[in-house]
Amino acid sequence: MTSRNQNLPEPAVGNTFSSAVFPLETMDVPGGTETVLRGGRHLFPLLPTAFAGVRSIGVIGWGPQGRAQARNLRDSLAGTGIRVTVGLRPGSASAADARAHGFTEADGTLGDWLDVTAASDLVILLIADAALAAHHERVFAALKPGATIGLSHGFLLGHLRSLGGGFPGHAVIAVCPKGMGDSVRRLYEQGAEVNGAGINSSFAVHADPDGHAVDRALAWSVALGSPYTFRTTLGSEYLSDIVGERAILLGAVHGLVETLYQHHRIAGADPVTAYERSCESITGPLARIISRDGLRAVRDGLDPAGRDAFDRAYTAAYRPARDLVAEIYDEVADGTELRSVILAEARLTARPMTRIGGSPMWAAGAEVRARRAGRGTAVDPVTAGMFVATMTAQIDEFAERGHPWSEIVNESVIEAVDSLLPYMHARDIAHMVDNCSRTARLGARRWGPRFQAAYQQIALPAADAPADPALVAAFTAHPVHEALSAAAKLRPSVDIAVG
Amino acid sequence: MTSRNQNLPEPAVGNTFSSAVFPLETMDVPGGTETVLRGGRHLFPLLPTAFAGVRSIGVIGWGPQGRAQARNLRDSLAGTGIRVTVGLRPGSASAADARAHGFTEADGTLGDWLDVTAASDLVILLIADAALAAHHERVFAALKPGATIGLSHGFLLGHLRSLGGGFPGHAVIAVCPKGMGDSVRRLYEQGAEVNGAGINSSFAVHADPDGHAVDRALAWSVALGSPYTFRTTLGSEYLSDIVGERAILLGAVHGLVETLYQHHRIAGADPVTAYERSCESITGPLARIISRDGLRAVRDGLDPAGRDAFDRAYTAAYRPARDLVAEIYDEVADGTELRSVILAEARLTARPMTRIGGSPMWAAGAEVRARRAGRGTAVDPVTAGMFVATMTAQIDEFAERGHPWSEIVNESVIEAVDSLLPYMHARDIAHMVDNCSRTARLGARRWGPRFQAAYQQIALPAADAPADPALVAAFTAHPVHEALSAAAKLRPSVDIAVG
Repeated sequence: MTSRNQNLPEPAVGNTFSSAVFPLETMDVPGGTETVLRGGRHLFPLLPTAFAGVRSIGVIGWGPQGRAQARNLRDSLAGTGIRVTVGLRPGSASAADARAHGFTEADGTLGDWLDVTAASDLVILLIADAALAAHHERVFAALKPGATIGLSHGFLLGHLRSLGGGFPGHAVIAVCPKGMGDSVRRLYEQGAEVNGAGINSSFAVHADPDGHAVDRALAWSVALGSPYTFRTTLGSEYLSDIVGERAILLGAVHGLVETLYQHHRIAGADPVTAYERSCESITGPLARIISRDGLRAVRDGLDPAGRDAFDRAYTAAYRPARDLVAEIYDEVADGTELRSVILAEARLTARPMTRIGGSPMWAAGAEVRARRAGRGTAVDPVTAGMFVATMTAQIDEFAERGHPWSEIVNESVIEAVDSLLPYMHARDIAHMVDNCSRTARLGARRWGPRFQAAYQQIALPAADAPADPALVAAFTAHPVHEALSAAAKLRPSVDIAVG
Repeated sequence: MTSRNQNLPEPAVGNTFSSAVFPLETMDVPGGTETVLRGGRHLFPLLPTAFAGVRSIGVIGWGPQGRAQARNLRDSLAGTGIRVTVGLRPGSASAADARAHGFTEADGTLGDWLDVTAASDLVILLIADAALAAHHERVFAALKPGATIGLSHGFLLGHLRSLGGGFPGHAVIAVCPKGMGDSVRRLYEQGAEVNGAGINSSFAVHADPDGHAVDRALAWSVALGSPYTFRTTLGSEYLSDIVGERAILLGAVHGLVETLYQHHRIAGADPVTAYERSCESITGPLARIISRDGLRAVRDGLDPAGRDAFDRAYTAAYRPARDLVAEIYDEVADGTELRSVILAEARLTARPMTRIGGSPMWAAGAEVRARRAGRGTAVDPVTAGMFVATMTAQIDEFAERGHPWSEIVNESVIEAVDSLLPYMHARDIAHMVDNCSRTARLGARRWGPRFQAAYQQIALPAADAPADPALVAAFTAHPVHEALSAAAKLRPSVDIAVG
């Protein structure tokens, strides 16, 4: 069997890098170390040096990432003379919102996407994946000599390789925040009070004709407010990003709560109780415990009966979850998943995507949220066991495929508990899935139901059986705990709740 | 957007053909006619003429199709001097069963697959898809000059095209029974009492170097006991076969009953009642009504309140079901689906397929079956509306893609109600999915959960709204009713129940 994407780099990358500008640190990870840059506002004075040669940054697109990154970059670069301009496609519905946030045609910080591209030294492409797939050649053609292409995920690389094409001769760098645009902005703002607050980012240097790409990428990441920045490749980023959102970040968590909600309803629970034991338990206390104290703390915090239920649920869910993560990984690595997204995009005109927020469980969410004040939701041990098993399955699959530990813990744990789950807690999971990027929405719709069926048909019926001591021991002694603890030291503790 | 399988033929085929041996008939279908061959034992005396040049038929493989086809061919050709031999791979676990059915090394009717291939004038390849994908080159190399390759579905064509390869210079024909191997044998045996009983088949001529391929294919089909045989292409067969089993034949029906069972349980029904209103209602009365009187008879047989519930369920389910059938069709036509099957096959050694039969609903099945005697299960109108909507969605998608009407009704309706649903009624749907071909199992696992989620999250919540009169009118006036009625005239009424 051969892969269609023969050229997709192996995820394994060298974890060390050097900077002519920023002071780097070494982070201990299982089996070795990784070089990282700890961020913070005290580094802002170094930005002009690191951005040497960049006088203008064009942010193309005003989706959640574009909106957050353009604002953070502008604020971080205030007074440096480096100008941040937003570029939008003609007739874009986002123009009014960009103006409301101070990017205006009048002062030259808002313009046509191709004009802004042509005028910028660093062009950060944050338009939708489908638009990028359709129009990247026009963008490439508009670049001025010496301009750097900036990406925030690896979709375009996957797309170009599926076409057998590549990037033009420009520098290509990526800075990939491990959280939603909304979190990238919200935690950046907290950085004014708590230096270093923000969303961690990976960076990749894909093409470096002038030798300054690493510092340019690090400067971009520092200006976004990343607590720490680690190195990856665009190929590794692509794999972990697309797999992660289909698995624990969106698809699996949606499938899990749908299954558990129905399970509790069938067992006689009223809708509010069933919602609390499934969705609320994950987005509330579980996310908080993992964010604050790591994965093992979930199990450690349970009483003996709860721990037994956790262990049985963990045992029952680990294998089917791991099977699905492996399947998703194969399909993403092979290009099959991206092909499906492109086929789906072609159908959307005739067949608009339906919402998944209509299922009965979401009706209970509003009531649960309304009565939150003054009462805490307990961790449901079965819910916790299945959720943690799925998270660990993704961690293990990424580790087996050779991803760097910073990428593993950020894409499997920190992005979930610091960015997505708090947002889901404020709205709900279906709302989140129905409102994220189309590539993520399509992926969550493809794989969420697979997780749902696996939990319902395989894991739940097996959760009555005794736990597997070997699986439980592997969890309690898992190297991820060390990696999470090392990552935790690099980010300040801030309030992650979404209002 | 371009398709990877540029060469996959458009499904539209000429529906007419001529035979030098068999008397053909014309069948009225919506918008025209199709040439068909009505089968029956009175045609057996013509088989030697139609099989001119074929002295030995090798049936390679002893799965459900191999077992049925080898036996039917041997019985139909008894006394003609045309010998039917079974070929198995070394160490095949099926050898004992083949011997028990009279194919033995001693009389030369059982042998090594490559030896049997080398000795046969018609080599019917009925080994598993994955084995065919892995070993077709060895089989091709073993063929004697002038031998004809026989297939019973288009998988190998899809696989060869995904590799950029093709068939060798031999004649290539296909006869594709529209039912499980078990039904192909069981209804053939009924043909001794009711002439013409059997499972309808399509045939395709993919390569015809000596000009006798049509009659050779028709003879094969008559010898299998096909009530009527219609023409298709291997490409059209591939598309409708692989899509159909992922949709109404296996995947959708599994997803539907899981959703409805949980829905009724949440509403307070006990497990047996929930099972009866979901699974039992479909595999029992719905299958019988459609088999005997067609699709419209389901709605016509309901009282006004039931008809209203049917119409609302039909309205709620049609669109999400159609969206999914369109998605499956795109993925099969593009090659993405086959690619996923091959990736999944490569994972099976390390990650064996888990069973789906462990979900709680199947535990109720045994009790439902045990108490069947003396009581009939009523048609549940919501179940009926969603099932018929999904069947009609598949019919409409196939019609829009240009499939011949015989293929549409056989692959969407007749195979379901005459072969698969009676088998599911005797066992259960999960048992059926867990025991069919790996390509079908993998497909049902990929798409069943998608249907389940669509019914649960989109269709059921919408079924409280009023029906859409235009959708209901399109159903009652649907041209499929004419096509089903024409097909019904070509097959005798027999007992389709499985003991």
